[in-house]
Amino acid sequence: MQKVHNNLIEKLQKYIEQKNNAKIVQLLDGLHAADLADILDQLDFDEALYVIRLLDSDVTADIIAELDDDLKERILRKLSAKEIAEEIEELETDDAADIIAELPEDKKVEVISHIDDKDHAKDIVELLRYDEDTAGGLMGKEYIKVNENWNVLRSVAEMRKQAEEMEKVHTIYVVDDDDRLKGRLSLKKLLTTSTKTPIKNVYNDNIHFVNVNDSADEVARVMQKYDLFVIPVVDELGTLVGQITIDDVVDYIKEEAEKDYQMAAGISEDVEANDKLMQQMRARLPWLVVALIGGFVSVIVLSGFGNAMNKYGTLFFFTPLIAATAGNVGVQSSAIVVQGLANGSLTGSVWKRLFKEISLSLLNGLILSFILLLIGKFLLGHILTGFDMKMAITVSISLVSVIIMASVIGTFVPWFLHKQGIDPAVATGPFITTSNDIFGIYIFFTIAKLILGF
Amino acid sequence: MQKVHNNLIEKLQKYIEQKNNAKIVQLLDGLHAADLADILDQLDFDEALYVIRLLDSDVTADIIAELDDDLKERILRKLSAKEIAEEIEELETDDAADIIAELPEDKKVEVISHIDDKDHAKDIVELLRYDEDTAGGLMGKEYIKVNENWNVLRSVAEMRKQAEEMEKVHTIYVVDDDDRLKGRLSLKKLLTTSTKTPIKNVYNDNIHFVNVNDSADEVARVMQKYDLFVIPVVDELGTLVGQITIDDVVDYIKEEAEKDYQMAAGISEDVEANDKLMQQMRARLPWLVVALIGGFVSVIVLSGFGNAMNKYGTLFFFTPLIAATAGNVGVQSSAIVVQGLANGSLTGSVWKRLFKEISLSLLNGLILSFILLLIGKFLLGHILTGFDMKMAITVSISLVSVIIMASVIGTFVPWFLHKQGIDPAVATGPFITTSNDIFGIYIFFTIAKLILGF
Repeated sequence: MQKVHNNLIEKLQKYIEQKNNAKIVQLLDGLHAADLADILDQLDFDEALYVIRLLDSDVTADIIAELDDDLKERILRKLSAKEIAEEIEELETDDAADIIAELPEDKKVEVISHIDDKDHAKDIVELLRYDEDTAGGLMGKEYIKVNENWNVLRSVAEMRKQAEEMEKVHTIYVVDDDDRLKGRLSLKKLLTTSTKTPIKNVYNDNIHFVNVNDSADEVARVMQKYDLFVIPVVDELGTLVGQITIDDVVDYIKEEAEKDYQMAAGISEDVEANDKLMQQMRARLPWLVVALIGGFVSVIVLSGFGNAMNKYGTLFFFTPLIAATAGNVGVQSSAIVVQGLANGSLTGSVWKRLFKEISLSLLNGLILSFILLLIGKFLLGHILTGFDMKMAITVSISLVSVIIMASVIGTFVPWFLHKQGIDPAVATGPFITTSNDIFGIYIFFTIAKLILGF
Repeated sequence: MQKVHNNLIEKLQKYIEQKNNAKIVQLLDGLHAADLADILDQLDFDEALYVIRLLDSDVTADIIAELDDDLKERILRKLSAKEIAEEIEELETDDAADIIAELPEDKKVEVISHIDDKDHAKDIVELLRYDEDTAGGLMGKEYIKVNENWNVLRSVAEMRKQAEEMEKVHTIYVVDDDDRLKGRLSLKKLLTTSTKTPIKNVYNDNIHFVNVNDSADEVARVMQKYDLFVIPVVDELGTLVGQITIDDVVDYIKEEAEKDYQMAAGISEDVEANDKLMQQMRARLPWLVVALIGGFVSVIVLSGFGNAMNKYGTLFFFTPLIAATAGNVGVQSSAIVVQGLANGSLTGSVWKRLFKEISLSLLNGLILSFILLLIGKFLLGHILTGFDMKMAITVSISLVSVIIMASVIGTFVPWFLHKQGIDPAVATGPFITTSNDIFGIYIFFTIAKLILGF
C-alpha cells in the first residue's frame, strides 16, 4: 500500500514553483492513479493543472477519472477539446463516457471528433445514450466474446486479438451469429478441449445477466445476491452490448448510501464537508424553509388553543416533548419502510405492516406513558404548578395517541410515495418530522380539550 | 436470471406435504443457492428444515450460508453437530467460519471435531480467532501462492494442486521461504515465460495488501479506492495469511450503510421490517426513552419561564418552531461531519469546520429570520394576539442564535465522540435532536427575557 506523505506534497509544490519538471516526474513515478488524484486534490488548482499538463496522457487519463467531481470539472474546463480527446483515448469506454457526459454539449461533440480511434469513439457515443443510473450507464464496452459456431482454435486467436486492449479478462462470453448472449466459456474448458471442437459443444449456458435498461439498483442487487464480479448486459433483443464490473457497482452503492443518509438528514444535494458555502447552502436551506413553514402551521395550531393558557398553561410546557416524540417515532417507522422498500425485505401488504407498526406503537406508547406517569407523580408534580393527576393522564393518553399517529404517518407516507414512483427516501427526515410535529400538537390539545375542557 | 415464481413455492409445499422427495429434488435442481435460500425463507420452518435434510450437503451448505440470519440460526439449532460438520466440509473457509461463529460454545467444539478434513478444520479455527469487523474476519484461506524460488514449471504444477479445491482463481501470490508476501504473478507472464525461469525474475512486486488486524472499513476503503476484486491479507510479520474477495466487502458495505441509516433514525439494533415485535421494540424503545427524558428536561426549562405566560403567552406558541429548527440544523451539521469522518473527506481542523458551519448558519439563519419577519408582519400579526414587531424581532434573533448553536453542537459532538474512539453515528438522530431541543428552547426564552423583560 502506497501511503501519501505530507512532505511529498511539500516537495511537489516546491518543484512546481521551480518548474523542475524532471524532478516532478521522478517524484510521482509509479504511484497509482488513485493516489495521484488524492495528491492533486491537495494542491492549489493551478499546481494541479500544471501537473496534469506535464504528465503523459496515459497516466493523467486515469487520474482525471479518479478526481473529485469539483476539481475534475475545473480541470476539464481548462483543457482544450484536443487535450481531452487525448486523455479519452487512454481510458476504458465507461470512464471515458463518464468524463464526456460532464462536458457542455458543444465541447462534447468537439472532443468526440478529435478521438482518433473511431471504434472507441463509437462505443463512447453509444454509452452516452444511457441514463447514468441504469445498467447501460454503468457498463463498459470492453469484454471478450466468441461465436458459438467457432471452434476452439479460432476462438483462442480471436480472444487474443480482443484481449489486447483490455486491462483484465474476467469472463469469456459466448454469442450466436446475431450477437445474442448464449452463455460463458471457462478458461479451463478452453484449455482442455481439442482445438477442433466447436464452442457450441463446450460452453456453459447458466449465466446471470441484466438488461441495458435495468436500474443500477437492480444491477447491484443481482451482483450482490449471486456474488458476481462481472455481469454481462444485453439489449431488448438479447444482444450482448456490454459488461459491468463490480468496482463500478461498489462506487454506486457507496454513493447511494451517502445520498440516502443525507436525504434523511434534510440535505437535498450531495455535498461534502469541504464543499463551498454556497453549495452547502443550496443543499441545506430548502429543507429548513419547508420546516419553518411547518413551524408556522404549528404556531397557528397552538394559537387556536390559546384560551387554554389561563387555566392549563402547564400544557404548553409539554408541546416540545409531544412534538419530539412524534418526530422520533415517525422517523423510526419511515426508516424501516424506506429501507425495506430499498432492499426488498418488505414483503406482505401495507396493511399488515401498518397493523404491526400500530401494535408496536401501542406497546412502546404504553411503556413511555407509564414512565411519564411515574415521573409526573414523583417529580414533576412537585415542580410544576397545576400538574395534577388529571393532567398527567391527559399527557399520557396524548402520548400514546400521538405515537400511534406518528407511526401510521411514518409507515404510510413512504409507502404511498413509493407507489407513486417517487423515491420514498425524500419522505424521511424533516418532512416526516415536521408533519408529525403539527399533527402531534393538534392531537395533544384536542385530547386535552376533551378531558380537561377549556 | 432465474426468477422465483410463486407457483414454485406452492408446488414445493404440496410435494413436501406428500413427502414426494423425487419431485422436490427435480423441482429445485439447478437453482442457485441464493435463490434456494430465498425459497426456503418463504416456507414454514418445518418445511424448510425438511428440504435442507433432503438435499445433498454440497447444495445445502451454500444455501445455509445464504439464509437470513434468523432462519439460519433456527435451522442450525435443529441440525446435529455431525450434520453441521458435513455442511461445513463443503463450504469455503470464510463462510464455514461465519456459520460456526454463530453456534453456542460447546456445539462449536463438537462440530469442529466432526470435520474430517483436518486442514480445513485448522483453517476455520484460525479464522474464528479474528473479530468479524476486521480483515481477518472477512478473509478466506483459499488462495494460490507460489514460492519466489520455484521455477515456472514447478509453480504451474503446485498451482494446479492448490486450485483443485477453489471455485475461482483471481490472483497468484508470490511468497518467500518464510511465506512472506512478495508480490503477484500474472497468468500471461506465467504462460509466456520459459519453464526453467525462477519466479523471482518475473513476478510483479507492486501489490496492494491489508493487515489482518485492519478494520473492515479500511479494507473496504482500499479495495474501493484501487478498484480491487481481491486483496491479500498479511500478519504482523508480513506472512500471507488469507485473501478477501470483493463480494464479502460489498455485503459489509451494504450492512454498514443500513446500520448507519437506522442509527440516524434512532434504531439501535439492526432490524428489518419483518422482524418480530419484541426485536423491533428492543431496537426502538431505548432511544424513545432517552428522548422522553430529554423532553422532561425541556418541560422543566419551559416551566422556569412560566411567569412570561401572562404577558407574553404567544412566545409559547413558538417553542415547537424553535425546537424543530434547532433539531433540523443539528441533524444536518452532524450528518455532514459523520459522513466526512467515515469516508475521509473531512480534512482540516475542527475549528475550520466550525467556522464554516457558523458562517453557513449565520447565512441560513438570516434568510430564515427574514422569512419569519415577513410572515410575522403580513400574516401572523393579524392572527396572533400580542404578536407585535418587538416579538417578531425577538423570535428572529432567537432563530439565528439557535441555528448557530445547533450547528456548533451538531459539528462538535460527533467530532468529539470520534476523538474518543466512539462511533460518531450514535450522535446523529434523536441524541442531537433532543439536546438541541433543550438548548434551543433555553436560548429562545433567555433572549426573549432580555428583550421583552419578564
